[in-house]
Amino acid sequence: MTRPLTHPTVVAGVDIGGTTTQVVLCTPDLAVVAHTQIPTPAAQGGPAMIRAALDALRRLLGQSPRRLAGVGVGAAGVVDTATGRVLVASDSFRDWAGFPVTATIEAELGVPAFLDNDVNAFLRGEVAKGAVQGERDVLGITLGTGVGGALCLGGTLLDGAHGAAGEIGHIPGFGDLPCTCGGRGHLETLASGRAVATHYARRTGHRTTARHIAAAAENGDADARAVFHAAGTAVARAVLITAGLLDVTTVVLGGGLTHAWHLLHPAIRQALEAEPPVSAQPIRLERTRLAGHAAAIGAACLAGPRPAPVGA
Amino acid sequence: MTRPLTHPTVVAGVDIGGTTTQVVLCTPDLAVVAHTQIPTPAAQGGPAMIRAALDALRRLLGQSPRRLAGVGVGAAGVVDTATGRVLVASDSFRDWAGFPVTATIEAELGVPAFLDNDVNAFLRGEVAKGAVQGERDVLGITLGTGVGGALCLGGTLLDGAHGAAGEIGHIPGFGDLPCTCGGRGHLETLASGRAVATHYARRTGHRTTARHIAAAAENGDADARAVFHAAGTAVARAVLITAGLLDVTTVVLGGGLTHAWHLLHPAIRQALEAEPPVSAQPIRLERTRLAGHAAAIGAACLAGPRPAPVGA
Repeated sequence: MTRPLTHPTVVAGVDIGGTTTQVVLCTPDLAVVAHTQIPTPAAQGGPAMIRAALDALRRLLGQSPRRLAGVGVGAAGVVDTATGRVLVASDSFRDWAGFPVTATIEAELGVPAFLDNDVNAFLRGEVAKGAVQGERDVLGITLGTGVGGALCLGGTLLDGAHGAAGEIGHIPGFGDLPCTCGGRGHLETLASGRAVATHYARRTGHRTTARHIAAAAENGDADARAVFHAAGTAVARAVLITAGLLDVTTVVLGGGLTHAWHLLHPAIRQALEAEPPVSAQPIRLERTRLAGHAAAIGAACLAGPRPAPVGA
Repeated sequence: MTRPLTHPTVVAGVDIGGTTTQVVLCTPDLAVVAHTQIPTPAAQGGPAMIRAALDALRRLLGQSPRRLAGVGVGAAGVVDTATGRVLVASDSFRDWAGFPVTATIEAELGVPAFLDNDVNAFLRGEVAKGAVQGERDVLGITLGTGVGGALCLGGTLLDGAHGAAGEIGHIPGFGDLPCTCGGRGHLETLASGRAVATHYARRTGHRTTARHIAAAAENGDADARAVFHAAGTAVARAVLITAGLLDVTTVVLGGGLTHAWHLLHPAIRQALEAEPPVSAQPIRLERTRLAGHAAAIGAACLAGPRPAPVGA
């Protein structure tokens, strides 16, 4: 799929989240030349979400003299990369499951379009251009409202038999608290932004955001420090499980909770040092370096002249 | 690596365990034509172990008019498949870590030799010719004195960055009991033959083998039933963790503890049904069908005309 670069082209990356849609234009080697973000009209359904993203993309392209070579999309939920459709989406997205994302974009723009899960796109971006560039065996975890995961094994993004690989937020072995998914003791019950807020409210009677709790921890609030410590310890256990099963060498963390890196990172490191992985190999632990654009950049790599820079 | 089959050939598979070495001769399509087993002279070191295996192999070959095309070896521990050396071996093996297994065999026999971890070989055998033939996304678990694991993802055996993938026996999240490896709360503390014996002794004051405990469970011994139930429940949790992370569809179990399948299987099934995997896809659960020869047959496939029948 290499194309002769007879004149400058750009590839677009679109990261459709529950709240915000990020759009980037990149050179074929993934340097960002323009970016924007818009609110995701998730309640208005798939056609409106794609229309809003394409309007934003056309505005960016209007400012660029370069030719668009393709579009990559990262979308929350389980997706079918082969058919370019969303398979399973959360309740906050209307008419999104089943929506033909790539076919709609290709019909609108006349360029090839590609779809992947947004956490896969995050990891693809970090491996291609971010904090773990060039690594071949990487676990990616996003600590947002929920917890997402993706795996790069031997340089290839893992899809799984049903396109559902990497669901680290919902693996058991993390206590006995009920999870939003209906299960119990999942990583997400300790390590998500939602969990941090819930545990802080339970300890203090005060319900606030993870960002405010992080600020309180900075000011010496012991309850705030405790919930971040619990989140970091749980992340470390998930890392140990994954390293034991898959012999990954590297972990990259993204999502809103990683803004509190100085709270999370020592807790994770401490737990990893207390219980080294079976391989006895050290684990490289990094925080996202693409400032919220990792998934959009990772989606853009799907459409680049190297459509699968880390395998896939 | 296909060879013209101008005259009948056989491939050999050797499974070197801590107690016993299994040797099989197979046709190129992995039908077993002869097999034998010998005690592993583990305390005598690598050269003695390979000499004993090759003596047994020569005895089998002496009875066969067919030409030997190659030898595959499955060995306990961490191995380097590329160099054909053992990297890490347990203390019960003398001078085994670092031993050049394939080079020694190639020098002795003048045919190509291949090496893999014994649990990988077990899974390779089951996928090529056993209980899960043709499956592409499979977790293999051996429940022996310890607990071993191997993964087939998208039809390819996973080695991992350091050749240590699949160490499911030593992933945390299974309570807080000390493990033989120095960690705590690993799967092996509940689901190994050693764990079953230890927990039974703790409950009853009576120390005996897992096989005797299984017989006692059959005769209505509530303590015996309880330790097998705990083992099965722990296996189910490991399966859920793996299915969540990797979206595998199928699990094959081997090792001595699976002789008590009628005790283990209901406990595993019950726990899987109580907490379905995130993908909401059913998990196929099978017991080994190769009667203790799975690893030897899987090793033989390494040397066959299709050296990587499930990928690799």
